[in-house]
Amino acid sequence: MRTQIAIIGSGPSGLLLGQLLTEAGIDNVILDRADRDYILGRVRAGVLEEGTVALMDKAKASGRLHAEGLPHDGFSLAFDGRDHRIDLLGLTGGKRVMVYGQTELTRDLMDRREAGGALTIYGATDVQPHGFDTEKPYITYEKDGTAHRLDCDFIAGCDGFHGVSRKAVPEGAITGYERVYPFGWLGILSDVAPVSHELIYANHPRGFALCSMRSETRSRYYIQCALYEKVESWTDDRFWDELRRRLPVHHAEALQTAPSFEKSIAPLRSFVAEPMRFGRLFLVGDAAHIVPPTGAKGLNLAASDVNYLFSGLLEHYTDRSNAGIDAYSQRALARVWKAVRFSWWMTTMMHRFPDSGPFDQKIQEAELDYLTHSEAASKALAENYVGLPY
Amino acid sequence: MRTQIAIIGSGPSGLLLGQLLTEAGIDNVILDRADRDYILGRVRAGVLEEGTVALMDKAKASGRLHAEGLPHDGFSLAFDGRDHRIDLLGLTGGKRVMVYGQTELTRDLMDRREAGGALTIYGATDVQPHGFDTEKPYITYEKDGTAHRLDCDFIAGCDGFHGVSRKAVPEGAITGYERVYPFGWLGILSDVAPVSHELIYANHPRGFALCSMRSETRSRYYIQCALYEKVESWTDDRFWDELRRRLPVHHAEALQTAPSFEKSIAPLRSFVAEPMRFGRLFLVGDAAHIVPPTGAKGLNLAASDVNYLFSGLLEHYTDRSNAGIDAYSQRALARVWKAVRFSWWMTTMMHRFPDSGPFDQKIQEAELDYLTHSEAASKALAENYVGLPY
Repeated sequence: MRTQIAIIGSGPSGLLLGQLLTEAGIDNVILDRADRDYILGRVRAGVLEEGTVALMDKAKASGRLHAEGLPHDGFSLAFDGRDHRIDLLGLTGGKRVMVYGQTELTRDLMDRREAGGALTIYGATDVQPHGFDTEKPYITYEKDGTAHRLDCDFIAGCDGFHGVSRKAVPEGAITGYERVYPFGWLGILSDVAPVSHELIYANHPRGFALCSMRSETRSRYYIQCALYEKVESWTDDRFWDELRRRLPVHHAEALQTAPSFEKSIAPLRSFVAEPMRFGRLFLVGDAAHIVPPTGAKGLNLAASDVNYLFSGLLEHYTDRSNAGIDAYSQRALARVWKAVRFSWWMTTMMHRFPDSGPFDQKIQEAELDYLTHSEAASKALAENYVGLPY
Repeated sequence: MRTQIAIIGSGPSGLLLGQLLTEAGIDNVILDRADRDYILGRVRAGVLEEGTVALMDKAKASGRLHAEGLPHDGFSLAFDGRDHRIDLLGLTGGKRVMVYGQTELTRDLMDRREAGGALTIYGATDVQPHGFDTEKPYITYEKDGTAHRLDCDFIAGCDGFHGVSRKAVPEGAITGYERVYPFGWLGILSDVAPVSHELIYANHPRGFALCSMRSETRSRYYIQCALYEKVESWTDDRFWDELRRRLPVHHAEALQTAPSFEKSIAPLRSFVAEPMRFGRLFLVGDAAHIVPPTGAKGLNLAASDVNYLFSGLLEHYTDRSNAGIDAYSQRALARVWKAVRFSWWMTTMMHRFPDSGPFDQKIQEAELDYLTHSEAASKALAENYVGLPY
């Protein structure tokens, strides 16, 4: 089998890239180890930058997103017992974010892909990219016990942090930068109305908390926890009690509770692999970089990678220029590092670190105080939160 | 002897407070362990915020400052081999800083004080504040072998980090917050024209460097050094060579050199004591807080403390209200912590830390890249550099 672009991974970055290519008339095949239901069962973030929404528009997969997504004009930083609203719309001169679950976005892209007839091969095992340092790359994989080969012009590695794409790069050709944070997030999903119509990021002596949502009837709540915590030791009641303690009183009193239907602990990590291109193999999204979820940059960074790679591939096929492809790694990484810095900064400012002392604590308080009282500092936060320009 | 305000320490904060009080008709006496020449021999910072200049105006001691001081409308962040100018004037809507040596400012205040006939007792040893938790505080000291007592309404502790004022506070009544940085600054003074008419803060793989000045013919240069370095092992030639290596090429080539006439290594520290008031004793400036010199906040913070204390004392004597005195500690500390945060942040961003890894290094680069390309972030830097409002 042969295609123009072989895409490894049927998560949002692979699907978004595939859909943009399909719309542009560029043939592509997606391979995924898992099946559709498994992929749609993964719970992920849900705050989209306008640039991400614009790419969904371009991919002609944004109908439901616009109908059901919740535009947010601001969010709240809660500390010292009070809310401090960050007016995204006012501070950025008219920009907002869209709350829409990643699972829903993935489903929309899958539906659109299926309707258009582009090929996705689910349940492809032993996927392996080959020859990307030559003019004739290809992918081998197994499906239903049979070995297959997919020839292509380029390979897009959209298979996440644990995927095969980055691992296929020869050792020494890649440099990894990493920071592992000394805590995790314990998160739940519950079908109750969100405690506030906007997100609340809370800095509290007991640890960070985040009140987020998937819809007007589905809430997503998180609390910072130690890495040694086990999800089994967190009953719903214990979770709700702890969350209440970390919120300003008026929120704690308004908090509605119901049984959770998802509960998990996620570690927090910053990771960047450089470069993001190896001949005819491109790393995209989580395959190349991970950010802690504070600030909701993960999915949006994947989308910005897709933007740069798609425009590079389009140039290659329509203008016969490799300028965009050659610039991919540098362009993507410039934006990646800014978002990695922002996520690191917001994580550092909002969490309690086990090894931080009284001085660090006062610096955190001074930073929050300054941030919420300086228009310039609030603007810097807001412009990062809504997404820096591509 | 009796006075209204006893001031311990004849540095800039004690002198400025004394002069403001004298101008307002409030009697004050300054005590200092050292003599005038010793005090004027100390080499200190020299970048004044507009608020500091305004206080010098109010103290009627700003004639020479306006005549000889160098107004600076911007400064340079140098990294990656290039200059990135921070346009203070444009970013803050018209604010600038004034370069004028602290030694000169101290001399002007001393001259003004002497001309007005207010009393300064130099060479006062064994200075000790007493009874500041009562209505009748007093100070004991020795002068020329004789014990003396100075009764007063209030005591202003303007005697620096190592002074007796903070030490006189009972243990347990005071909380100290501290950060010691794992490097120092090796600084020289030399009578050569500055390499640039504006300050250059350089982030370089070999360490931080700062090109500053006292006048158009006197340069003040610093390089980050390890704490174990000895000043004796730094010949002038070695210093100039190392400075050149850390500057963008066009500056390195333009650098004029001459023998240094002052050379010293200073450690970098952040320190804040809370509260800043204990009954009728007030801590002012370095007696209560220390910042690393990056960002030049030390003298300016002392001036802002003086501003709050002076207005509180004026209220006490003219309006018979203690509201200003009672609010002194809280008001001063709110501004202190913002400046401590800024100095810590600028120090962290501009220096190489011995224990920082590749991830930290990339974050530093991303921060500098973002900072110099985002108007909001540049504004936040600029508004802190020129001084947040009182």
